[in-house]
Amino acid sequence: MKKTKIPAATIIRLSVYQRYLKQLLARGVKVVSSQDLASQANVNPAQLRKDLSYFGRFGVRGVGYCVSTLLQSISSILGVMEQRNVILVGAGPITQALLRHPGFAQQGYHFEAVLDIDERNIGKSLDNGMVVQSMERLKEIVEEKNVELAVIAVPSDQSQEIGDVLVEAGIKGILSFSPNRIKVPRNVSIQYVDFTILLDSLTYNISKGRKEETKKELKKEEQKLKWGSEHSWPVVQSNSNGYSVGYSS
Amino acid sequence: MKKTKIPAATIIRLSVYQRYLKQLLARGVKVVSSQDLASQANVNPAQLRKDLSYFGRFGVRGVGYCVSTLLQSISSILGVMEQRNVILVGAGPITQALLRHPGFAQQGYHFEAVLDIDERNIGKSLDNGMVVQSMERLKEIVEEKNVELAVIAVPSDQSQEIGDVLVEAGIKGILSFSPNRIKVPRNVSIQYVDFTILLDSLTYNISKGRKEETKKELKKEEQKLKWGSEHSWPVVQSNSNGYSVGYSS
Repeated sequence: MKKTKIPAATIIRLSVYQRYLKQLLARGVKVVSSQDLASQANVNPAQLRKDLSYFGRFGVRGVGYCVSTLLQSISSILGVMEQRNVILVGAGPITQALLRHPGFAQQGYHFEAVLDIDERNIGKSLDNGMVVQSMERLKEIVEEKNVELAVIAVPSDQSQEIGDVLVEAGIKGILSFSPNRIKVPRNVSIQYVDFTILLDSLTYNISKGRKEETKKELKKEEQKLKWGSEHSWPVVQSNSNGYSVGYSS
Repeated sequence: MKKTKIPAATIIRLSVYQRYLKQLLARGVKVVSSQDLASQANVNPAQLRKDLSYFGRFGVRGVGYCVSTLLQSISSILGVMEQRNVILVGAGPITQALLRHPGFAQQGYHFEAVLDIDERNIGKSLDNGMVVQSMERLKEIVEEKNVELAVIAVPSDQSQEIGDVLVEAGIKGILSFSPNRIKVPRNVSIQYVDFTILLDSLTYNISKGRKEETKKELKKEEQKLKWGSEHSWPVVQSNSNGYSVGYSS
């Protein structure tokens, strides 16, 4: 039997649906339409149905989805039913921000320990009262607390070294805030958070939008010229986005 | 002419390639193989070629890519040639972490101002010497400094309100650290950073890996039973990952 590969984007959207279903449940809403649920992940109902179809049949045609049933199913698919312990490596500003972020506890993630290889940080107290521990305690904590997830927030040139140590200790999933790619074995998953890459995506969209707008304006001008409604060369220095159209009389 | 839709994942990978090309250029490397470049984004050379093919023809068969030419092309495609000014909204721990992150300046992103609607934060000095300003200054700064990008790092229940104000002021791209979906007009792009969603993806992969391992073990046991090498029912309480296989003698 051929295994269907489930797209990473589908898994991300399952999390988005799951969060919205949680909100609905808390508000006492019993049924949600596919339109409403799909819009949370910026997709259309057909994509939502496709996302769910990888895992079985859900929902009732013309009615929608039962909030509590679908929530339970998606949570079970994601494997996020119980509390999951997470280790943080690196005691810098990102770790401080994560520790103060309310979203983790809400989603069942518990920060078990903060570790560091920087001697100067070990023993330091953090905002939430946790104390930074030495990397030497890693294996013990991983085994005792059944930790499978780790966050890496160390300078880029240390990330591979830390990654190796985490894998060796039995960590199965790594969230890295270092842009450097880390080599891990096939049975270990890794996700990168790179803020600047996301800004690049936005920049790309902005400059694409601008190019399209410029093209439209040029076309309009061409039309005008074609139909003779204006006979002098148009002076278009910039459009509303400040982009120079680049030709003048 | 039909327009080809370029996948968001391709744009993200372009950024990954671009960063690696920058590193190579700094190290004086002149040519890069498609294998090496592709591996940075965890894809195969075919995918790399497909990613680039949306934008033209690059590279020489059997040789590879000229580092400096490809770097310039990708930077131009992404529109990340010049410095880009960014506004931060919300003066909490995430903003503090972003201000201390070296990656932004390296990629040409400059934080122009930190704004907040929380009266108690206005006038506060941040680690890097910037002073938190009132949202009332938004429009002025956006116009004066030609700002198109903004980061939202405020409590979730304020994110839509802030999003509306940013769009109204002329912001074209938003990076939001609030999990709540923000409604924006079509000409505005938005990216969400949700750490817990990324942890969910890791959790899914871990639990999927475990299920596959369990299946394999079950199959092995079945084979044993089939071929009669062992006649008593196997007692398998858990495999190495602690997952209960669920049947016993």
